[in-house]
Amino acid sequence: MTHSTHSKPAASETGDPFLLTPGPLTTSRTVKAAMVHDWGSRDASFIAINKAVLTRLCEIANGGGDYVTVPMQGSGTFAVEAMLTSFVPPTGKVLVLINGAYGRRAKRILEIAGRETVVHETAEDTPPDLNEVEAILKATPSITHIFTIHCETTSGILNPIVQIGALAAKYRKGYLIDSMSAFGALPLDARALHVDALAASSNKCIEGVPGLGFVVCRRAALGACKGNATTLVLDLHDQWANFEKTGQYRFTPPIHVIVAFHQALEEFTAEGGVAGRGGRYQSNCRILLEGMTALGFKPLLAPHLQAPIIVTFHMMNHPRFIFQDFYDGLKDRGFIIYPGKLTVADSFRIGCIGRLGEKEMRGALAAVREVLQEMGVTDSATRAA
Amino acid sequence: MTHSTHSKPAASETGDPFLLTPGPLTTSRTVKAAMVHDWGSRDASFIAINKAVLTRLCEIANGGGDYVTVPMQGSGTFAVEAMLTSFVPPTGKVLVLINGAYGRRAKRILEIAGRETVVHETAEDTPPDLNEVEAILKATPSITHIFTIHCETTSGILNPIVQIGALAAKYRKGYLIDSMSAFGALPLDARALHVDALAASSNKCIEGVPGLGFVVCRRAALGACKGNATTLVLDLHDQWANFEKTGQYRFTPPIHVIVAFHQALEEFTAEGGVAGRGGRYQSNCRILLEGMTALGFKPLLAPHLQAPIIVTFHMMNHPRFIFQDFYDGLKDRGFIIYPGKLTVADSFRIGCIGRLGEKEMRGALAAVREVLQEMGVTDSATRAA
Ligand SMILES: Cc1ncc(COP(=O)(O)O)c(C=O)c1O
Ligand SMILES: Cc1ncc(COP(=O)(O)O)c(C=O)c1O
Repeated sequence: MTHSTHSKPAASETGDPFLLTPGPLTTSRTVKAAMVHDWGSRDASFIAINKAVLTRLCEIANGGGDYVTVPMQGSGTFAVEAMLTSFVPPTGKVLVLINGAYGRRAKRILEIAGRETVVHETAEDTPPDLNEVEAILKATPSITHIFTIHCETTSGILNPIVQIGALAAKYRKGYLIDSMSAFGALPLDARALHVDALAASSNKCIEGVPGLGFVVCRRAALGACKGNATTLVLDLHDQWANFEKTGQYRFTPPIHVIVAFHQALEEFTAEGGVAGRGGRYQSNCRILLEGMTALGFKPLLAPHLQAPIIVTFHMMNHPRFIFQDFYDGLKDRGFIIYPGKLTVADSFRIGCIGRLGEKEMRGALAAVREVLQEMGVTDSATRAA
Repeated sequence: MTHSTHSKPAASETGDPFLLTPGPLTTSRTVKAAMVHDWGSRDASFIAINKAVLTRLCEIANGGGDYVTVPMQGSGTFAVEAMLTSFVPPTGKVLVLINGAYGRRAKRILEIAGRETVVHETAEDTPPDLNEVEAILKATPSITHIFTIHCETTSGILNPIVQIGALAAKYRKGYLIDSMSAFGALPLDARALHVDALAASSNKCIEGVPGLGFVVCRRAALGACKGNATTLVLDLHDQWANFEKTGQYRFTPPIHVIVAFHQALEEFTAEGGVAGRGGRYQSNCRILLEGMTALGFKPLLAPHLQAPIIVTFHMMNHPRFIFQDFYDGLKDRGFIIYPGKLTVADSFRIGCIGRLGEKEMRGALAAVREVLQEMGVTDSATRAA
């Protein structure tokens, strides 16, 4: 086989490879073009843009007047650490629900910050056992908060945030969610869940560029967090108090990232918000699953556990299938996929999020088929097709 | 007087007002245009760009092989907090030299993080008293580190980092510098100073966009920092260890900001590095000081204390001089200046840094003259001219 089976690689509006990754992801040209200006960080026009961003994020979570968005410079993990260490006092104890790398990371953050944890861990393809969670809550009344991941991006699994929220309410525990890879694509009703706080970032399903995390916080819960934090920069209460007082960031914000985020939110709204955005990702996910299955790949997750964010596939069990060649062949054709991060299975991942639709997903599938042929893995592909 | 005295407002290459502020500042069109692409954060081309950035920053500080740059997502303060809480162990004690808001902020960071401090504070127009510093070092042998600000942006004062470094060496103390607003414009020889670490950010004298801080660290000192940090995200040792292992960020980097920073560093090098960049700022500062003095304004600092970064002027003592009108009038003409932050004097600030040269500084001065005329503050202006 030769590399001559493909002509020009596929490319985005700005000539870049398509990122079939869990973010940073392919963004629209207009989102990036919004950054080709300078603003002062204390400039009224920038302050208005930032305010619109924070308000809109709160609306997306159905936060109403009870919630407020506190941005956090850095990345998603900065927002998660800020949330955990601002909402959980040094004397708190968190029940951490783990089924992947991001749950494990939250546990590590809490341990480093000296917050006690109780862990309920399940395999990466398995949601938490709600009976077990309830048993832990009964057995350990000193637990103050429950933490879970909305979509655990390690596998792409959707965790049952509503049912966990019901347990948090029943046992009167604080409820903290890492909704990083789900926010904006999967419905999340902050008020109905009575969640204390949920963290996400600019460069996932809202399709902005990376550089800003944010936490949608229940005002009453946030108001009680004064003095909990053991850092200056990650103190969400202090960050919030400063916005209330001045409308401004305490420390220089990533202005260009925020202006791009504002544009991304406009495009999100134009697409129909969570329903429209989530619908496109659902369709991307369906096309991907059908196409890859036809080519002989097996997804890790049962369909009812699969969030339309990123799909984990088992490595193909074929002597000629070499992942690095597969990855490189797809990259040559303009599609970047993602290595696996699982402990339970040898796997790789393909994302469904970002400025991608049916055309790009079918283009990626055509590239997969070509690369398999080039590698000489045609038999299984043909067999499955 | 009417607003008709000016025609079209001045504007940068991208049509924006000029930012005569201490950063975020006016950047070149090409720096911003570098952001109109998407990259995966694990992409080889992005990793190479990031590596070039880190290497170049170390060179600018004359770090040689003894130093390494560790980036920190967020802003300058994130880098300062990461530096302080990674280099100073929980049992450490820091002599904090304060003559402005950024020194006070560092003290607050240390206090929140539970690190002991000893303070030597001078007025905002006064450098530290080196005899007094030495006396403190003699009297308090439990001090482990000295912290100072290179250019204290509150006033624009240049602090004597070489002399302080000599004391740090003499008394064998760790030496930590916040070089935020000076890095790249004022010479700093990390090896000669034997500094442990110095913090700066993307959006000051290198003329990038905001979103990334960084710390240039002495490898031997950084290597001894394992386990000092009490956060995950701000742990410089862990961030560094991960780069050594994988070449990658632990958490999503602000990719677009970093690519713009790379372009900014290319332009910095093309301008002749610290000598070229610092030379242009020196010239900007001279033009500004001469022009403003001629218009009746008095700078706060004695000439030998004035860094060519930002100049603090006393408010004009004239019944018709109203700062908000002055600010708005300049803004209407395309120049954004900066309010004061001083406790010692009622003042405002005008920056000399960013993509500004003689033409823009003279343009700003012409605008100042016009606005003074409009406000009816002509007598003093004429008198002084
Ligand atoms: C569920 C989840 N949490 C946290 C993160 C960390 O975000 P970041 O890489 O922006 O720090 C991610 C990133 O993919 C994620 O998917
Ligand atoms: C000397 C100094 N230190 C720290 C900072 C804080 O940087 P940032 O606003 O990026 O957090 C600044 C910002 O102007 C500064 O001038």
